[in-house]
Amino acid sequence: MDGKSSSNHAGKPIRCKAAIARKPGEPLVIEEVIVAPPKTGEVRIKIICTSLCHSDLTFWKLKDPPAIFPVILGHEALGVVESVGEGVHEVVEGDTVIPIFLPDCGECTDCLSEKSNLCTKFPFSVSHWMDREETSRFTDINGETLYHFLSVSSFSEYTVVDIVHLTKIDPTIPPNRACLLSCGISTGVGAAWKTAKVEAGTTVAIFGLGAIGLAVAEGSRLCGAKRIIGVDVNQDKCEIGKKFGVTDFVNPGNCEDKTVSQVIMEMTGGGADYCFECVGMNSLVQEAYASCRKGWGKVVVLGVDHPNAMLTFNSFEVLYSGKSIMGSFFGGLKPKSDIRILEKRYKDEELRLDEFVTHEVEFKDINKAFELMIEGKSLRCVIWMNK
Amino acid sequence: MDGKSSSNHAGKPIRCKAAIARKPGEPLVIEEVIVAPPKTGEVRIKIICTSLCHSDLTFWKLKDPPAIFPVILGHEALGVVESVGEGVHEVVEGDTVIPIFLPDCGECTDCLSEKSNLCTKFPFSVSHWMDREETSRFTDINGETLYHFLSVSSFSEYTVVDIVHLTKIDPTIPPNRACLLSCGISTGVGAAWKTAKVEAGTTVAIFGLGAIGLAVAEGSRLCGAKRIIGVDVNQDKCEIGKKFGVTDFVNPGNCEDKTVSQVIMEMTGGGADYCFECVGMNSLVQEAYASCRKGWGKVVVLGVDHPNAMLTFNSFEVLYSGKSIMGSFFGGLKPKSDIRILEKRYKDEELRLDEFVTHEVEFKDINKAFELMIEGKSLRCVIWMNK
Repeated sequence: MDGKSSSNHAGKPIRCKAAIARKPGEPLVIEEVIVAPPKTGEVRIKIICTSLCHSDLTFWKLKDPPAIFPVILGHEALGVVESVGEGVHEVVEGDTVIPIFLPDCGECTDCLSEKSNLCTKFPFSVSHWMDREETSRFTDINGETLYHFLSVSSFSEYTVVDIVHLTKIDPTIPPNRACLLSCGISTGVGAAWKTAKVEAGTTVAIFGLGAIGLAVAEGSRLCGAKRIIGVDVNQDKCEIGKKFGVTDFVNPGNCEDKTVSQVIMEMTGGGADYCFECVGMNSLVQEAYASCRKGWGKVVVLGVDHPNAMLTFNSFEVLYSGKSIMGSFFGGLKPKSDIRILEKRYKDEELRLDEFVTHEVEFKDINKAFELMIEGKSLRCVIWMNK
Repeated sequence: MDGKSSSNHAGKPIRCKAAIARKPGEPLVIEEVIVAPPKTGEVRIKIICTSLCHSDLTFWKLKDPPAIFPVILGHEALGVVESVGEGVHEVVEGDTVIPIFLPDCGECTDCLSEKSNLCTKFPFSVSHWMDREETSRFTDINGETLYHFLSVSSFSEYTVVDIVHLTKIDPTIPPNRACLLSCGISTGVGAAWKTAKVEAGTTVAIFGLGAIGLAVAEGSRLCGAKRIIGVDVNQDKCEIGKKFGVTDFVNPGNCEDKTVSQVIMEMTGGGADYCFECVGMNSLVQEAYASCRKGWGKVVVLGVDHPNAMLTFNSFEVLYSGKSIMGSFFGGLKPKSDIRILEKRYKDEELRLDEFVTHEVEFKDINKAFELMIEGKSLRCVIWMNK
């Protein structure tokens, strides 16, 4: 498919290539698929590039529900509008957009409120379908239905996304930078900026320096944090962290007979003002809680544990410590308004995105992106659809 | 003892009456005790009146540490300064003061911060001694040491309190009203005002309408909450609640096959903006969490559970709900500055205190105050020392 002729296909199915996950944990297979035209409220977009986010890996490996196969994964991307369905006025053909898994209808109580990013009209769920009706826009060459993923499914040359999941973006920003705003980096930066509201001159501790954790560091740096303590079992993260504002590094393997929280309490003389858990382990949430400054410390949970995992806190501690506990979903960001602010800060050379892109591959080599993430070698691997 | 001649005793022990808890759960015994003069940083005060708070009851019944006997209980009170120890300049003989169990040194990082009420120089603990040295100022007539309680021990005609636990108060306020600001009512009002920062026009749900819960209602009313939902198994609280701004009442016993949180979700069309747990039960904290509005809901824990109790939350819920969890110790109030604001709001006839005083007794009848609280008949019973 060639983007220039895309408008000729408006209202008709498009035949193009997609990387299909047919079985859990098995390499994706690039096949020809049929992408139906967008229905009411939907937009068909041509994906320019997509990057691999950890949730893609999680759902690719997952054998049980909510995972489902065959599915077109991918949710961190940048694309160009090919055609729009009925009732879509917010974007037109040729607009550059990023898809975002979190809906933003712009009309409900939550979307109209400054405080919430959890749309009520289109409540987030791990659905395999389009938002407005339980159907797919993808079929394979044999007519078999292919499932959607997180309302995006960007591992395809073309995809159909509801308008509530699209944010227009400045087309002059390099696609392999702008696509990072679609999920992980925004989540981390937002967790510091919007959820924790990190204040200038404060101390932050980040548990887990993957891309999300490093983005929390970047967000904290932008907020003016004085000291950013990174915690990771991988010693290489000590050097990598410095690029994103990490000022101190703690390797739990080098703490001898102390716990990480004891080390952080000593380093900070009483605990960090904000502690972010970016791994998804109850025990680490407890360490984060214990590392947090009494009186005003905030513990922000970003890591995704298994669905039945429980977080436990001592009742007296909660009552007497003055600390608070909160989660951060998509960094507390409102997709249609806050992403534009991050976009501007990137253009103003305040927000660093370039450093997150450690690898780039062609679409045909998409499985390489999975390998790099599994091996812990990449922060973000950008997959170019037409290079 | 007569207050008018108190200054004659400066620097000397005072012999007066105190109600001693000699064994857990047994009636207090009024005996003559010796109250030593205040040492450096300490103040000896003549108690005018004291009221019974639930923590007095808890520690009176408790057989195991941190309870200890014989002890002089009582921590919600109003008194007049009889004499001051070395280095005390903040109050002078004759000043009207209320003792507060939570220290406020005015010098440490926390006391100087607007965000914390947890003094670092004198960290709160359930100690049996004075703050600056591990000794008591009380002995019984046989010379046996009597333990202090929560740095106050107000069930005595005279007591010695560290200056960090004293707040000066307007002597024209009736003592049986001002003493309520010493603990419970301030805690509840502060939880709404300072911890949750209840906004005008919002909806509040309060689990447990004892004095603390009703004070949360009063605080929420003062903050301009539009709807205040009280939850209690005692149907009488429905009428009592109305005096403090409770607009809706839920009796868990009348919810048929629904949980309280289901009822509240339906009543509010999605949950309350703020939920306060004022009982001290993990299951009720979970109901409060479930009753809270997604996107911005705050769960505030005020209830005291047993020391090893754990609070548990589903990890996904924390991550995806946008709700936050926080404790409120002394309502997040800074004793020396915030109590004066509440005092002013009482004088300005904004804050209601009168309605909390359901009973008043003479000192000799102090055990009656315990009975009334055990039977659930009183909100606050004021005990007058010299009537």
